Amino acid sequence: MATGTVDQDTTQAAIMDATYRALCDHGYADLTIQKIADEFAKSKSLLYYHYDTKDEILIALLEYLLDQFTVEDAIDPTDDPETQLQSFVDNLMPGSVSSEEREFQTALLELRSQALSSEAYREQFTRADDFLRETVARILENGIDDGAFRDVAVDEFAESIVTTINGAMLQRATTNSEATVPRTRDELQTRIQSVLLESEQSG
Amino acid sequence: MATGTVDQDTTQAAIMDATYRALCDHGYADLTIQKIADEFAKSKSLLYYHYDTKDEILIALLEYLLDQFTVEDAIDPTDDPETQLQSFVDNLMPGSVSSEEREFQTALLELRSQALSSEAYREQFTRADDFLRETVARILENGIDDGAFRDVAVDEFAESIVTTINGAMLQRATTNSEATVPRTRDELQTRIQSVLLESEQSG
Repeated sequence: MATGTVDQDTTQAAIMDATYRALCDHGYADLTIQKIADEFAKSKSLLYYHYDTKDEILIALLEYLLDQFTVEDAIDPTDDPETQLQSFVDNLMPGSVSSEEREFQTALLELRSQALSSEAYREQFTRADDFLRETVARILENGIDDGAFRDVAVDEFAESIVTTINGAMLQRATTNSEATVPRTRDELQTRIQSVLLESEQSG
Repeated sequence: MATGTVDQDTTQAAIMDATYRALCDHGYADLTIQKIADEFAKSKSLLYYHYDTKDEILIALLEYLLDQFTVEDAIDPTDDPETQLQSFVDNLMPGSVSSEEREFQTALLELRSQALSSEAYREQFTRADDFLRETVARILENGIDDGAFRDVAVDEFAESIVTTINGAMLQRATTNSEATVPRTRDELQTRIQSVLLESEQSG
């Protein structure tokens, strides 16, 4: 049983790895199960045995990626809360992205647009946003408990950080505005200063 | 010549109206030129004469909609700057939407996802975001000139309002999180208070 589980896990990981690569290379619209199978070194029949459509595999990929993350892993406990929040923003909205990161972000938005009409995709993106909000909320709660942050409305502030990051990613990927990300990062600094920190400094 | 132009304008408006209705009814993926033609009361050959693909018509629709708006029209000059900003947020991120508005917002995001791979769509959404940013920037400049707002970095703050609205619209349409819009609206109030207004009140 144990060995069977390990084998299944290894096969699952290999399928997910092949799906990730095929998605980045071809994009959602041009992706087919055959193109995923072409990236999959093991028996292709295994892949067809597990999944009937490309959407089933892609939803499994989103689930698999989300299973990798916990709120605890996303926060470095040796950092102070302000640095934790800054690292979160830097990771989610980097100032520059490699071409592979850009391909993956574009693919993620293509998958997200499937959630406009598919409940299965919608569940995964609900989960993704919940994870981001919970991570920011944890950082804010730690900072408020420490006295590092003002006693702000945690859920509202966490929501605003996540909507800002999602909005900036959408704008970066769907417009020619080069200024969106640098301006958004600058404004987030100001917002963290004005809303979270200011009265601490004057108090 | 003048009559010719009026006729062309009327025909254009009728095609755009048919396209808008067909897009809301069927969504992007299921839309065809035939379905637009079915909504178009005049000679269908006119429609086929002007456009070869549904994307050509949809890009023309985005252009047509954007041509309707000017920054001046988007701001009520009889309101004070704080009310102008509040109205802008209310219009772009209403607390509740009718089913027709929801269909149109979903369709707009479907079109926006085409901008991930199409430069023609990307140009229109660049223009749309530019328009929103310029409108907020104008409101902020008026308020700073009046002394109603603090002297904030206008471009950064305008960008943050637009990324917040785009992010919240994306989240509302692609997740099951009911709380996104009310929380985002609450936080925007706090942000306007803390960043734009607060030192005015204490000064």
